[in-house]
Amino acid sequence: MANIISTNRKLEFQDFKRSELAERLGRMARICSDLNIPILIIVDGWESSGRGYVIKDLTREFAAKNFDVAVPDKDDAWDDSYPFIRKFWVNVPKKGNIKIFDRSFYYKLFENLKLSDKEIESRISSIKNTEKTLFDDQTIIIKFFLNVDKDEQKARIKALKDSVKKDFYIDGLDKDQEKHYEAYEKHFKKLLEATDFPYAPWDIIDSNDRKAASKEALGIAIDRLSQGLERVIRQRKENENIERTYIKGKSILKNLDLSKEISEEDYQKKKDRLQKEVADLMYKYYEKGISQVLVFEGVDAAGKDGAIERLIKEVDPRLYTVYGISAPSKEELERNYLWRFYTKLPKDGYVSIFSRSWYGRVMVERVEGFAKVNEWDRAYGEIANMEKEIHDHGSLVIKFFVTIDEDEQLKRFKDRQRNPDKQYKITDEDWRNRKKWDQYQEAMDEMLEKTNLAYAPWVIVGSNQKKYARIKVMEEYIKLAKEHLKKLEK
Amino acid sequence: MANIISTNRKLEFQDFKRSELAERLGRMARICSDLNIPILIIVDGWESSGRGYVIKDLTREFAAKNFDVAVPDKDDAWDDSYPFIRKFWVNVPKKGNIKIFDRSFYYKLFENLKLSDKEIESRISSIKNTEKTLFDDQTIIIKFFLNVDKDEQKARIKALKDSVKKDFYIDGLDKDQEKHYEAYEKHFKKLLEATDFPYAPWDIIDSNDRKAASKEALGIAIDRLSQGLERVIRQRKENENIERTYIKGKSILKNLDLSKEISEEDYQKKKDRLQKEVADLMYKYYEKGISQVLVFEGVDAAGKDGAIERLIKEVDPRLYTVYGISAPSKEELERNYLWRFYTKLPKDGYVSIFSRSWYGRVMVERVEGFAKVNEWDRAYGEIANMEKEIHDHGSLVIKFFVTIDEDEQLKRFKDRQRNPDKQYKITDEDWRNRKKWDQYQEAMDEMLEKTNLAYAPWVIVGSNQKKYARIKVMEEYIKLAKEHLKKLEK
Repeated sequence: MANIISTNRKLEFQDFKRSELAERLGRMARICSDLNIPILIIVDGWESSGRGYVIKDLTREFAAKNFDVAVPDKDDAWDDSYPFIRKFWVNVPKKGNIKIFDRSFYYKLFENLKLSDKEIESRISSIKNTEKTLFDDQTIIIKFFLNVDKDEQKARIKALKDSVKKDFYIDGLDKDQEKHYEAYEKHFKKLLEATDFPYAPWDIIDSNDRKAASKEALGIAIDRLSQGLERVIRQRKENENIERTYIKGKSILKNLDLSKEISEEDYQKKKDRLQKEVADLMYKYYEKGISQVLVFEGVDAAGKDGAIERLIKEVDPRLYTVYGISAPSKEELERNYLWRFYTKLPKDGYVSIFSRSWYGRVMVERVEGFAKVNEWDRAYGEIANMEKEIHDHGSLVIKFFVTIDEDEQLKRFKDRQRNPDKQYKITDEDWRNRKKWDQYQEAMDEMLEKTNLAYAPWVIVGSNQKKYARIKVMEEYIKLAKEHLKKLEK
Repeated sequence: MANIISTNRKLEFQDFKRSELAERLGRMARICSDLNIPILIIVDGWESSGRGYVIKDLTREFAAKNFDVAVPDKDDAWDDSYPFIRKFWVNVPKKGNIKIFDRSFYYKLFENLKLSDKEIESRISSIKNTEKTLFDDQTIIIKFFLNVDKDEQKARIKALKDSVKKDFYIDGLDKDQEKHYEAYEKHFKKLLEATDFPYAPWDIIDSNDRKAASKEALGIAIDRLSQGLERVIRQRKENENIERTYIKGKSILKNLDLSKEISEEDYQKKKDRLQKEVADLMYKYYEKGISQVLVFEGVDAAGKDGAIERLIKEVDPRLYTVYGISAPSKEELERNYLWRFYTKLPKDGYVSIFSRSWYGRVMVERVEGFAKVNEWDRAYGEIANMEKEIHDHGSLVIKFFVTIDEDEQLKRFKDRQRNPDKQYKITDEDWRNRKKWDQYQEAMDEMLEKTNLAYAPWVIVGSNQKKYARIKVMEEYIKLAKEHLKKLEK
């Protein structure tokens, strides 16, 4: 029958003892840990299919400090007022650690028979991109789906109802699945097929017998870890010597008109009105529960922070947070580079403003060699995916690129050095970066070309005159924020 | 009339323009920031008293990247399933930054007329301890309470009801305060008096005129920052040359009997039964929604991690997280040392197990000089307060001190060096620490003496024979966990 979920493996590991298998798995996990490889294990499946039983066996020989089980209820991050996949990113495994998901983000697909096709598609696309991003970043991903027959599920739910342990194991979903077993089966089958990615395949395990299922999970996990280990080691070697072919297009930055100006009179006239309008718009977004992500990038001394401060001058400070992004910390370096940004996404109604952002991956990390060629090269796509997820949640995403020319930068650097109140703004690093002006311009050009997305556009703002740039940022914000609201109203 | 809240200052700053005051405040804030001083500003008061208005003015000249406003609704951490004060600790300001609380943790006192005296007392004590701990750690604390008359509040609520902006400003509490103004006034007065600490006094501001209130807040904030600045600079100088008088008591550790043993037969017989019992107990705690904090400390190679792994062997891994604590990261160093532990406290029903813990403050940080004398000296009290808060939330707190003698340690170190599977466990640091055996023992003795609290006892476990220690840890856990449940049932 077409709708019946079939386990995609025969039982292979039944002749071993669970303790033996657990020991082997523990050894493989230690090797991965020593090599700083993050491991992600998802244990999903029917309600009452024995997820807890399997998780217990999988972790039997893991070093207690080295793994953690994410349970939806345990974790504040499982909250619908953020983009769907953020819940997961907050808990991404760090290098050398094992993160086990009891249910995982798939739960938000599996639990609900009434999701629209569009919602399903958008969530699957988020999951797919996330798993791909982590895979490319040398994470080993194992996904188990525990399958039980209708009769077996019914019997287990009945048994649990009589047990003392029912709180943890029985909730409304159990009963709903028991009632509509066939509909869920069809639903699961469809979703399992749609999310069986080559880099993160499902292992569907017959869990009608808990012990047998546990043995299989242990055995499969050993295989998956050793396959992953081989792959990651190879990947690391390949990373060392990658060449990249890219044909430069016409430079966007070289052809900018940076000379635009505004008179002092005009500036004063416009500024107050625009700041008031920005404040009202941000309040409107709050009222409607729509979050906003505003990114500011640009060359050093172009006036990013000045533009941000003018933009939010009249906004209720409870509505926004401005994040100044600098070099990642040790904890941030232990996880995928996007982690520190996912954790800073705004809650519904609020605004996160990034002064520098994830685009550091394709600018400073590229130019300074902190990321390898293929790492920053694939970041264009990864970033586009993240911004798509934020947009799909209904949020507004705008990216401002505030820029000046080489002469203007020199003038500003020298001004800063001369002015005691501004000296702190200029460091040796600024001068070092300036020496690489052309390399940075090239990286910026490619970034602007590749990530100017309909749902997350770049607004390029020439800032040789700061006042012009500040007005321009406000005007463009107002225009795009209004358009976004109109689109949502449809 | 006794119950009427009076502003405790005359209006002093009315002759200045708000923009002038904001500029001065901005300058003071920059000085504090340059000196790495954390600033905490609490803006509380009646509903519709103009908190947003004041916060807007206070932040006018703060660097956007340097401050953040914590709003209860914005933040996942405001959740009753943790110890009350954790909500605040998660958001503690970091060095050089300004954290503004719209409402703050006082909200959980102010909002509720029906709190019992015991609840009020316990919460005030948490707040008091927290503010003291931060003050001692060189934080500048400013607390504003905005006071409005009954008629003025009524008029504002009416005006807001007709305004478009009502969502953000009007909620049930407004209406309740309007209805029971006098009862709330009495309630506030009592709480304000009880929490007017010398190191964190309230500035009560007449906010019947919003602009006047804003000027006062700005002016007061400038004074508070400069007073705080002076105090912190003095404090830093004094920290450099503190002498400490402490009369050593009888050594606890020297008088321990570490020779206790258990036969292999007994061990095997007891182990499985105890592990099963631990698992059942932890499940019972989960069912009852009671969280647990288990701390493991002890000399190197005493077998802490082995004891932890045996203890949780049969426990559902979804219920606990084991935190291995090592040197703090940059982000952790930027905040009070307790921050990284508050953020790891368990949610109701769950278990946090710490392999090493906050006691590092009075052991490694003391012996190695990472903390100054008065810093680690006051940590005994700070730690006791934190554990009290966890206990007052209903949680179980047990601390295991697993220890061996000097000869046994040498034997284990050498074993580790000889055994290829264990070599990773022994580092140069272990040998270095060993050289300071006596200093560590002295620190440990003092710690065991000063922090053996009725609500958070030390269980000292002699571990010259590991098996004995493992059984002992399980037996003591079971005993104390059962006692705690019984006490809660009363």
